[in-house]
Amino acid sequence: MCDRIQNRTGWIRHVSITPPTLQNNTADADRLIGELKTRLNTDAVDIDFYLLKRLPDLLRKCEYNVDCILFKDRKRWVVTGITHSQDTSPTYGLAVDLGTTRIVLRLIDLSTGLIPAETSFDNPQISVGPDVLARIHFADQDGGLNKLNKMIVDSLNRMIIRLCDSCKIKPYNIYSLSVAGNTAMTHFFMGLSLHWIVREPYIPVINRPGLVKAKELGIKVNPMARVLIFPNVGSYFGGDLIAGILFSGLNKTEDTAILVDVGTNAEVVLGNRDWLIACAGAAGPALECGVTGMGMMAGPGVIDQVVIDHDTYNIRLHTIDNMPPRGICGSGLIDLAAQLFLRGMIDIKGKLVPSICGNRLKKKDGARHLVVAPAKDSATGSDLTISQADINSLIRSKAAMYTILETITSSAGISFKDLSTFYVAGAFGSFINPRSAISIGMLPDLPIDRYKSLDNSSIGGATMVLTSSECLDEIDNIRDRITYLELNVNQEFMNRFSAARFLPHTDSSLFRSVKTCAHISPPQKPSAAG
Amino acid sequence: MCDRIQNRTGWIRHVSITPPTLQNNTADADRLIGELKTRLNTDAVDIDFYLLKRLPDLLRKCEYNVDCILFKDRKRWVVTGITHSQDTSPTYGLAVDLGTTRIVLRLIDLSTGLIPAETSFDNPQISVGPDVLARIHFADQDGGLNKLNKMIVDSLNRMIIRLCDSCKIKPYNIYSLSVAGNTAMTHFFMGLSLHWIVREPYIPVINRPGLVKAKELGIKVNPMARVLIFPNVGSYFGGDLIAGILFSGLNKTEDTAILVDVGTNAEVVLGNRDWLIACAGAAGPALECGVTGMGMMAGPGVIDQVVIDHDTYNIRLHTIDNMPPRGICGSGLIDLAAQLFLRGMIDIKGKLVPSICGNRLKKKDGARHLVVAPAKDSATGSDLTISQADINSLIRSKAAMYTILETITSSAGISFKDLSTFYVAGAFGSFINPRSAISIGMLPDLPIDRYKSLDNSSIGGATMVLTSSECLDEIDNIRDRITYLELNVNQEFMNRFSAARFLPHTDSSLFRSVKTCAHISPPQKPSAAG
Repeated sequence: MCDRIQNRTGWIRHVSITPPTLQNNTADADRLIGELKTRLNTDAVDIDFYLLKRLPDLLRKCEYNVDCILFKDRKRWVVTGITHSQDTSPTYGLAVDLGTTRIVLRLIDLSTGLIPAETSFDNPQISVGPDVLARIHFADQDGGLNKLNKMIVDSLNRMIIRLCDSCKIKPYNIYSLSVAGNTAMTHFFMGLSLHWIVREPYIPVINRPGLVKAKELGIKVNPMARVLIFPNVGSYFGGDLIAGILFSGLNKTEDTAILVDVGTNAEVVLGNRDWLIACAGAAGPALECGVTGMGMMAGPGVIDQVVIDHDTYNIRLHTIDNMPPRGICGSGLIDLAAQLFLRGMIDIKGKLVPSICGNRLKKKDGARHLVVAPAKDSATGSDLTISQADINSLIRSKAAMYTILETITSSAGISFKDLSTFYVAGAFGSFINPRSAISIGMLPDLPIDRYKSLDNSSIGGATMVLTSSECLDEIDNIRDRITYLELNVNQEFMNRFSAARFLPHTDSSLFRSVKTCAHISPPQKPSAAG
Repeated sequence: MCDRIQNRTGWIRHVSITPPTLQNNTADADRLIGELKTRLNTDAVDIDFYLLKRLPDLLRKCEYNVDCILFKDRKRWVVTGITHSQDTSPTYGLAVDLGTTRIVLRLIDLSTGLIPAETSFDNPQISVGPDVLARIHFADQDGGLNKLNKMIVDSLNRMIIRLCDSCKIKPYNIYSLSVAGNTAMTHFFMGLSLHWIVREPYIPVINRPGLVKAKELGIKVNPMARVLIFPNVGSYFGGDLIAGILFSGLNKTEDTAILVDVGTNAEVVLGNRDWLIACAGAAGPALECGVTGMGMMAGPGVIDQVVIDHDTYNIRLHTIDNMPPRGICGSGLIDLAAQLFLRGMIDIKGKLVPSICGNRLKKKDGARHLVVAPAKDSATGSDLTISQADINSLIRSKAAMYTILETITSSAGISFKDLSTFYVAGAFGSFINPRSAISIGMLPDLPIDRYKSLDNSSIGGATMVLTSSECLDEIDNIRDRITYLELNVNQEFMNRFSAARFLPHTDSSLFRSVKTCAHISPPQKPSAAG
């Protein structure tokens, strides 16, 4: 490995130290640490006790030329491995997005910053409860927290082995991990009590876990490996969002931008390189696969895009992997609602319009349902339908989201049009068609090119700290600069929320780009979705 | 426990934190750390990961009033325990003097600084070799280092249990340890290679071990406990001496003083609050029980004081515990040599004078021996004798010691009379009668009241860091201020050494207080020692 490549991430440094003499008889470790302090411009370099045992022979064997594998916690660097400069055994980092629903692992070559492999798996805690609240309740029972912690740790260890096998490396080759998750998931991962997180005044055990030894967390990688756990701002603003901000670069932009992580909770950060304001609020489960009937998480056969013909009102569906439809995910639902509204099939209150929907409407359990995919086309053999209640739920969610966006921008004295970029992140958020989200008044009516999808920004940020040591410095800067705006559900909030419970909004001047067919006559040949 | 008592050592701090509110929702750990940072005036407080698990419940149970058990490494504090302020379970520290020959343990109450118990035991490594060199050789063999490390660690664990039993406490109650030993013993304790310590240019693995987790060292006390390992200046100037300097207060005196640790190696520190110069040199085994015949370590029946009658030349012995004599220790030997010289029984070259010694002289294996205790009085049933070779060996050792003292003082431009205090430390050094040491020219001819015995200064210094957090700050100050003087055995050194090989010295003006009877006529009634 040449020095240039090693320095690509900043985590592996070639160190050449002056051999000792009678006149300069500083000890091996102190000599190495001294050189690293100079090179890294820091006064704090820790060396793992176990490394000391191998150090003297190693230094002499490679004539005082070694590669140091480093990690750091603020200004404090840690040496987690030392190798012979000629040693070609690989050194990896592992970025982890500890999602409530899905956990993503990404292997990173610490020399080059390249990503040789990635995998993801369902959070095994889903078996206890799909949402964090159910799990926290479970954790309060005897042995519950340990069980939930073990679920995470054991599954991570299993997946680490698989990921390493796929690259023909050993978990021993992993020296650094970065883990981004919401505050609850981070606490589950560390085995820390969540009891007070959900009780006023909502206090986590720790805001800045910093670097923890992988071994102490039960993660089976190199015994010297450290885990950087992303800090949180509080119970409702977690490390996944700090990672997201890092990934978006919001904290470095000159012009003010906004980042929205769309899910059951809407987490929003507004700011630029000078300031950051954040808030989080419940948007309801509708935005994330929580609609009662056909809602589900993205997967094969799940509807993710919907177009309704102008003339025929036929519902054309796109499913993931082009499989027969079996349900609809959040982005599909937003598409569907937007299309229904634009074709006049639902009115500005979201009510299904029988005169337009025609025979697509059916009564089921006494409630009005719209058939999205008839039984003959669906994977389930039954009609896939959406109920009036599902639509109402979606409207409440989109209204909550818009209200949160209005509240945070107005608190900063910013109007939407001042936003240079509107980043959309989150497990499904990045799949949202902004045009559809604008149509239903969930996102503000900005030129489409201002919307940028960030995909999984949490794993993105977790990756960045392993591919560049400079990024790590940003984490605490971001955390420390965030002003957290407590969303008070006061009269002003409720007024905004009420106004946003229409499609797209009671004040249509806010959504000039949205053109509906609400007052157009019914279609010529209504038929079930094709 | 009241706050006043807790603050006696500075290691237990009562912390009262503001309960969290919706407006101030900092996490439990960050809230505690924030308060400690303010209280301790530092920007670095670590909290052990395992403590986090108990923290939330504990904080609420005791209404945000806790006692924190602390330790530190330079400016970095570590919380090793948190207890309810009402909790009366004891918290202890353990000071350890890791001697080559003897290991001393001292239990310290971290609240009061009091010492409820102390114990000591022979270094079990003696079975491998009495001196460090033999052990280092053994360590180089396959598995040798592990074996030597295990000897120390296992015996410490056993003795810790006994010590705790004697005070009716558990090893769990020990939260902090301070360990002072020479560089080799420190390396054995940590399981670090000693291979390069004895090979030019004599490089230890580490100079500043700092704080290490007791668990990582295999020491079975509280799992969160940290061990402060005293730093060394190099292979020949270890943590025991840094502890000794701390204990003597040499580093804080206005007037220049000197500290001598007398043993097989003579370790010397000269200085005051502004500067410190140190050196170490081989003085030979004679000063520490290494004389071939009757030499031994202090213990019951070992001669530690000798007086020879002016008139009768009878040798009057004092033995430890007043048991029949079975050998002589270093301080006894110096006494004996001084008395023999003052009575004219050896001449200024150290040669036994037959005309004065009379029938106390015997031939044994063809060599001349002086009977110190006849068979009828001795515990062994044989004559206890000292040979001419033993005396010659002692004279070489005392000459080496004096030469080292001359070299270090002259290198600093100081003469002996400028020394305000002459501290004598070391396993046996503190038992030396300075009058005798002056008489044979081993120590300079200063007024007797300038000599101060320090007893075991190594355990003294190790104790101080546990009884006062401020003392800990001194350690690195001391280490960093030491200028190590490499003793070059050059022509000047050899000239000094040659001049010092006489009793008390070739230049008798240096020892005006020493009055010999060398030219007095033989005694009236010579007889064997009584």
